[in-house]
Amino acid sequence: MATVLTQKLTLEEFLKLPNLEESPAWEYVGGNAIQKPMPKVRHSILQKRLLAKLDSPKSNYLALPELRCTFGGRSIVLDIVVVSWDKIQLNEFGEPEDNFTQAPDWSIEILSPDQNTNRVIDNLLHCLHHGSQLGWLIDPDDYSILILTPQQEIQICRDSQQLQVLKDINLQLTSEEVFNWLKLREIGANLE
Amino acid sequence: MATVLTQKLTLEEFLKLPNLEESPAWEYVGGNAIQKPMPKVRHSILQKRLLAKLDSPKSNYLALPELRCTFGGRSIVLDIVVVSWDKIQLNEFGEPEDNFTQAPDWSIEILSPDQNTNRVIDNLLHCLHHGSQLGWLIDPDDYSILILTPQQEIQICRDSQQLQVLKDINLQLTSEEVFNWLKLREIGANLE
Repeated sequence: MATVLTQKLTLEEFLKLPNLEESPAWEYVGGNAIQKPMPKVRHSILQKRLLAKLDSPKSNYLALPELRCTFGGRSIVLDIVVVSWDKIQLNEFGEPEDNFTQAPDWSIEILSPDQNTNRVIDNLLHCLHHGSQLGWLIDPDDYSILILTPQQEIQICRDSQQLQVLKDINLQLTSEEVFNWLKLREIGANLE
Repeated sequence: MATVLTQKLTLEEFLKLPNLEESPAWEYVGGNAIQKPMPKVRHSILQKRLLAKLDSPKSNYLALPELRCTFGGRSIVLDIVVVSWDKIQLNEFGEPEDNFTQAPDWSIEILSPDQNTNRVIDNLLHCLHHGSQLGWLIDPDDYSILILTPQQEIQICRDSQQLQVLKDINLQLTSEEVFNWLKLREIGANLE
């Protein structure tokens, strides 16, 4: 289960916590500071492989792991966010600002054992309500991916179903391909 | 975790299993026979109280616990279904037929500890795709209720938010009221 700080905080107080960026990350939702569960091996493999798949130098989007996004009264740390380049604010040295204060274009969460699904869905809906176009919830125990889009019915994808990605990202991917990344013994699984 | 029979079955084979109606119930999804988890105390209290709340003699709907619904290639046993009277087929004695082979109008599932949320959402979506108007997923650990309606964004309800019910059912209920049923020590909680 998630670790929750016993005292209620304001967002400002939360952002000043000294252990804010320890691992696993702390999130701020509904006045509470909540620590994400420690990722396990399968979680880490999926996160790494998906990040590599999404990270294309030609893309208009930047894929980032574990980026803190603070907007709409919450401060959450999604497993992967995909953000269009024009949302990245640069400082006077041409480097990105450290604080990201918008909803990402695409939010991806990978469920950990014992992590509460409704809480994760709640954060993905928070992103959609603040401008995200797409949310994924990857459940490695059920080999399924929930796809959330604004004002549309949630979809569940399994097996050979094509996964919905952002409109202007050219990527063909099925649930099966994602979960096959976990089969480390299969020839070439690490070489793709 | 769910108990799953190792061999794949056809729906016909599944429906002939001798232990089909043992408790907890077996379901048939995607060629597999899967046993629901044994309900715990909090689950049972919520199921009982909600059933009592939904069961009005004046209603056009019948609320039933643990009804097996077999349609669209699955056979599932939802915690509570709400079905309009005109969907109940009567036999020559004026009694309801034993087998229910349609999607209920409203499907309600109460999450058990260790039950996989995506699997439950999958069954609620199966209902929506076959004619259900409404699905609820009650999560007693997160004190939240997911509301699913056809072709609309999933909603998450907490605290004092009014819960969406079927259009022609006259019922005012909030998440808070539902989860307050679990507070057995509060005066009058059993007397409402």
